Amino acid sequence: MKIAKPLSDLIESFQKLPGIGPKTAERLTFYLLRVPQSDLEFFAQSLTNLKKMTVLCSACKNVSEENPCPICKDSKRDTDKILVLEEPFDILVFEKMGKYNGLYHILHGSINPLENIGPDELYINDLISRAKATNGHAVKEIIIATNPTMEGEATAMYITRILKDHHFHGKITRLGMGIPTGADLGYADD
Amino acid sequence: MKIAKPLSDLIESFQKLPGIGPKTAERLTFYLLRVPQSDLEFFAQSLTNLKKMTVLCSACKNVSEENPCPICKDSKRDTDKILVLEEPFDILVFEKMGKYNGLYHILHGSINPLENIGPDELYINDLISRAKATNGHAVKEIIIATNPTMEGEATAMYITRILKDHHFHGKITRLGMGIPTGADLGYADD
Repeated sequence: MKIAKPLSDLIESFQKLPGIGPKTAERLTFYLLRVPQSDLEFFAQSLTNLKKMTVLCSACKNVSEENPCPICKDSKRDTDKILVLEEPFDILVFEKMGKYNGLYHILHGSINPLENIGPDELYINDLISRAKATNGHAVKEIIIATNPTMEGEATAMYITRILKDHHFHGKITRLGMGIPTGADLGYADD
Repeated sequence: MKIAKPLSDLIESFQKLPGIGPKTAERLTFYLLRVPQSDLEFFAQSLTNLKKMTVLCSACKNVSEENPCPICKDSKRDTDKILVLEEPFDILVFEKMGKYNGLYHILHGSINPLENIGPDELYINDLISRAKATNGHAVKEIIIATNPTMEGEATAMYITRILKDHHFHGKITRLGMGIPTGADLGYADD
């Protein structure tokens, strides 16, 4: 294959991304040849800065520029509630919806014995500490919003059990599950 | 939206790429948070180098690290034939197939009056010069392989006419068109 190294390097990088195959990687690379150099520099700078300029919030483990993160620092938010999520990305879903006004806690994964991810690899102990902390007032509700997958369910069950073991007296709730809101009953699964 | 600037910058860059919407851009950005910094640096370097380290081959207008490009320089290739393509990306298609052993000529677009792209915006004059040049031996065949779109067809017709106007005496051919090779006749369009 007679392809210039600067091109094949970029194709290789694109191909490592989830959902991007060899064809798409090639198409994106050749597309970028027609983009101004300044845009390429901005893209490159964003990639370099992505991890350098961000930290994990020490409270909720969200990815943020500052510690504590803007959500944990926001005095208008309801500190009684903690919504437990698997990934930082999931925060966007709730923030876009704009209906939830409590705090978050990011686990950074789910319990997955097949991939050697146990409770100690996740930020579960930090959640327990937050649930027990009573500086000012106690946490009244922990909403477990892990994904409805095998791993997510196992994580939710584990967290529920361990919170009870640690004598957490607030409510432990899950997201509602069932027919998707707005869907037609006629298309519902048996 | 409480999203850290290093993240939103990268989401913005991804979103400018063709076929990548806001959701995918977010997913890719959060995925990259889990990638080693060295991989991010390599990706960033590839983006910066993409245009800096490449030139257009002065003969075929292919994107290459060197001028002339490896294909034009290759003494084993058949210099009698020139395959005319719209984009540098299209060379990959033919090189992967491995059946074509001639030279290429990249137009870098197609004639598109709606977007103000006329023959002068493309490398058509360079093609005429190559067709007429008789250093050693003349070009015997020019294969026009523009895309089977309105613009591609118009470009092919224009090139054919102008080559004849310039008294090009070699063959001017097009790619075969019709039933896709390997397809079932039963599924052919009326």
